[in-house]
Amino acid sequence: MFITFEGLDYSGKTTQATLLVDHLKQIGKQVLFLREPGGTAVSEKIREILLDKKHPEMTQATELFLFSAARAQLVSEIIRPALDEGKVVICDRFYDSTTAYQGYGRGLDLQQVKGINMIAIGGVIPDLTILIDIPTDEIIRRRNIAKMSADRMELSGNHFYDKVRQGYHALATEEAHRVILLDGMKPIQEIHEEILKIIHQQFKK
Amino acid sequence: MFITFEGLDYSGKTTQATLLVDHLKQIGKQVLFLREPGGTAVSEKIREILLDKKHPEMTQATELFLFSAARAQLVSEIIRPALDEGKVVICDRFYDSTTAYQGYGRGLDLQQVKGINMIAIGGVIPDLTILIDIPTDEIIRRRNIAKMSADRMELSGNHFYDKVRQGYHALATEEAHRVILLDGMKPIQEIHEEILKIIHQQFKK
Repeated sequence: MFITFEGLDYSGKTTQATLLVDHLKQIGKQVLFLREPGGTAVSEKIREILLDKKHPEMTQATELFLFSAARAQLVSEIIRPALDEGKVVICDRFYDSTTAYQGYGRGLDLQQVKGINMIAIGGVIPDLTILIDIPTDEIIRRRNIAKMSADRMELSGNHFYDKVRQGYHALATEEAHRVILLDGMKPIQEIHEEILKIIHQQFKK
Repeated sequence: MFITFEGLDYSGKTTQATLLVDHLKQIGKQVLFLREPGGTAVSEKIREILLDKKHPEMTQATELFLFSAARAQLVSEIIRPALDEGKVVICDRFYDSTTAYQGYGRGLDLQQVKGINMIAIGGVIPDLTILIDIPTDEIIRRRNIAKMSADRMELSGNHFYDKVRQGYHALATEEAHRVILLDGMKPIQEIHEEILKIIHQQFKK
């Protein structure tokens, strides 16, 4: 089974993914936990370029291609072999991030973004995508609490994040069979239990 | 005017591009000479990943996306502004290399490669492409003379280069109005003079 977590930065998706990984390991599943962009030697080098604040000049097309390059490598080298071995693969961000961030957020042509996504994933579509939704203002509030500085992506501003969130909402509507939207303003434990219910229904299929 | 040089490694395209750049400068043209992948801070970092022999595991899709990322950045940051300023831009390799190497050589879907190329170049198509043709065996002979070791791309073998060469020939046929094929086995000076004739005809247009 292939499960992805999606959402705005600071939505709590990494926290929830980690809680789910711990739970699945406790009940004896073989779980592989990955993050995007990254997860292979080549993809981590690409990640460094993408998050480097020294590159405000990076174009939208370059960004799209770099995320896609990192993803193509991760799918081929890690995700597909793990799924073939019967492991549960959990990935913190996947191609829906590209649709939401580069397509809706940056305004690149959605059909072109979709075509590139399809080449990058080579047919490996998630069985289930947990989308954790928070209002855009909440990003700044949580970043201040975490006392983190913004990376290159996060320096894109609130208007950008509004469009990304709209993109995620569109995906949850268009691909309702796969993308489950959860309210990220609820307490962590409550969201975790919602996720467990969804996952155990999925395992019964 | 935007002129690109194409051909197999060791075809002599860099030598010919350099000779042309020198000539154009002597006759008072403002010339910008670039090489692919590279030419910007972001693109040079991408070049390092692409040529690094430590990554034989790199997938074909990853390679395609990395070349395209480097190109998108070069077009946007350097080539388009230089052309807008009226400079002559000469580029050692451009998107025909992707068609020949990743499309024909690696066997990726030619329509997908074409679609990605179009996103990467954003409408900046060369006015003229000089394709310098050598037989595949000549690569090895010239590499031995140069006492160079092969980079990651060059470790792909002779069968790969046969397909790349076929791809270049196909491009010269399909886009005969733009791509001029020259015999790279002729003496350097003779090829240079052929190129000068072609260029000066182009400037008269």
